[in-house]
Amino acid sequence: MKKTVTFDDIAKYTNFSKTTISRYFNNPDSLTLENQQKIADALVALNYKENKVGRILASGKTEIVGVMIPNLYLHYYSHMLNQLLSSYEAYGYKFLVFVGNENKSIERQYFQELLSYQIEGLIVLSYTISSEELASYNLPVVTVEREDQYTCSVNSDNYTGAVLAAELLMNKNCDVLIHVNGNVAEKTPSYQRIKGFEAFCKEHQLPHELIQSNLGNTYEKNIEGIRRSFESIDQKYAGKKKGVFFANDTYANIFLNLLFKKYGKLPDDYRIIGFDDSPISKEAVIPISTVSQQIEKMAEEAMDLLLMQMNERKKRRPTPLPAPIHRVVTPVLIERDTTS
Amino acid sequence: MKKTVTFDDIAKYTNFSKTTISRYFNNPDSLTLENQQKIADALVALNYKENKVGRILASGKTEIVGVMIPNLYLHYYSHMLNQLLSSYEAYGYKFLVFVGNENKSIERQYFQELLSYQIEGLIVLSYTISSEELASYNLPVVTVEREDQYTCSVNSDNYTGAVLAAELLMNKNCDVLIHVNGNVAEKTPSYQRIKGFEAFCKEHQLPHELIQSNLGNTYEKNIEGIRRSFESIDQKYAGKKKGVFFANDTYANIFLNLLFKKYGKLPDDYRIIGFDDSPISKEAVIPISTVSQQIEKMAEEAMDLLLMQMNERKKRRPTPLPAPIHRVVTPVLIERDTTS
Repeated sequence: MKKTVTFDDIAKYTNFSKTTISRYFNNPDSLTLENQQKIADALVALNYKENKVGRILASGKTEIVGVMIPNLYLHYYSHMLNQLLSSYEAYGYKFLVFVGNENKSIERQYFQELLSYQIEGLIVLSYTISSEELASYNLPVVTVEREDQYTCSVNSDNYTGAVLAAELLMNKNCDVLIHVNGNVAEKTPSYQRIKGFEAFCKEHQLPHELIQSNLGNTYEKNIEGIRRSFESIDQKYAGKKKGVFFANDTYANIFLNLLFKKYGKLPDDYRIIGFDDSPISKEAVIPISTVSQQIEKMAEEAMDLLLMQMNERKKRRPTPLPAPIHRVVTPVLIERDTTS
Repeated sequence: MKKTVTFDDIAKYTNFSKTTISRYFNNPDSLTLENQQKIADALVALNYKENKVGRILASGKTEIVGVMIPNLYLHYYSHMLNQLLSSYEAYGYKFLVFVGNENKSIERQYFQELLSYQIEGLIVLSYTISSEELASYNLPVVTVEREDQYTCSVNSDNYTGAVLAAELLMNKNCDVLIHVNGNVAEKTPSYQRIKGFEAFCKEHQLPHELIQSNLGNTYEKNIEGIRRSFESIDQKYAGKKKGVFFANDTYANIFLNLLFKKYGKLPDDYRIIGFDDSPISKEAVIPISTVSQQIEKMAEEAMDLLLMQMNERKKRRPTPLPAPIHRVVTPVLIERDTTS
């Protein structure tokens, strides 16, 4: 087999003229669908498939999806990416992946590059570029767990997740429910954890406290912040049975470690629950109860929403979506040793 | 600005004939370097850069690197990928990323696809495809921490890492040194951890034991396996000061949790060290001493080795490497609370 298949080879094989072959690559719609198919078949037969770039130029179908992730340090993101990439076996899409590290200008530059590669769609977990700007790229887009006014999206039902956590603590006969969270912005989806917690406590007239403070962006800062909450809670509610719900498993684990350092165990007057079902919730000194966002399911829904849009684009007369579709995945409670 | 720039537009702008423009795209070396440059400049001026696919067809420079990763569940892999992707800012390369989940036939299929996208190079962390097969793709390749006979590679110096760990335990006056590891194959780089441990103990005539057994591939199996080692060590060496070196931080953390459950603390007759500097070593009930492979440095060396090969390919007369280059990154000891 020759290394490079030329227009001559394709012309001879198909009995079309070289001009027709050229038109196939430069303006395929000037040929009948039948003739497009004949040439496409010839390309496969001649092993022309070994050069996708030519095919892409002809069809506009790169089979490439762009993925923008804030970072891969957080297990939530690496787990989600793992699930998205694993969809290759089912759908054949390849993924150009970028981590933006919250740098808006680099992320925008990368987006521009992605567009120039004729990617077929975008899955965006990073949050520096507004959904309005993303929508203006005129490309199938799905955003995940971030601002999504103008884009199709998949989000976790954070409100229900918080209600499930508070309900569990109530059922364990805690005297007071406490929610520890960082300074999250009201418009981010995870702010709904605060809303859900407060609404549930008010509805059931439970004594409760929201402890919101700057808990920092590094593990060392997290420790400092959680230590302050620990000292305050341990003193203020001495003698009471405390149910503490943390915004994530990392915070819950730090709190648990502080308890073990002080008491050598989880004292009977504490019940603890985290959020995310990240590895640390299993690997902690005793396994931590948590709320799972069902990352597999979220990744599945994201690919499904994107495929729907990408497949529509491949039609001769695509119908644009009348409005963005927002899907919500309900989280599930995972009871472990810190609430038993 | 028109949406599509045609050969006509480029011909008018450059005062070349359309045939010349066509030759630029199909056989650029038939033009002088000067004329190639004039057309390249015109493409930029005409905003033709918005369609990379055309440029790729002309130059063969996709600026895409393929990355093959076994999975993103293990922090080692997600951290490494994070570092590789972050090199975009410095070098401009984009990454088509794939997780193979140890499925050889899917990985091979994906490799074939990657080649058809005219990627410029490959970084391979997964280990299902032999280095001999990878080398046969005739593409710049760097393998990381896996079998590498026929490919350029970056590896961690596991032997020295184990020596550093054993030396620390010796310096903490342990009566007996114990190394707990799974059934790793002798040809994998991480087997050198066993070699380094045993050689150091023999050289310093230290009482020691290697406990190697099937520790399983899931966290639950790991717990079962480590519990068996724990019961054996705690009984057999009662009254002695035990220095236990684990093949990874996950094992070390499980062991530490078992100690806390039995004794409410790390007893004075135990010193513990893990390997990998993964997040759990910091987040454990007390921070675990460990050996860091310097993932940032390894990712840097991998990109450097790949760039060297890719840049050579872009020369008019590339010189092939006389033999694969193997780089080794020396790990560093991180002392924390389990050896103090």
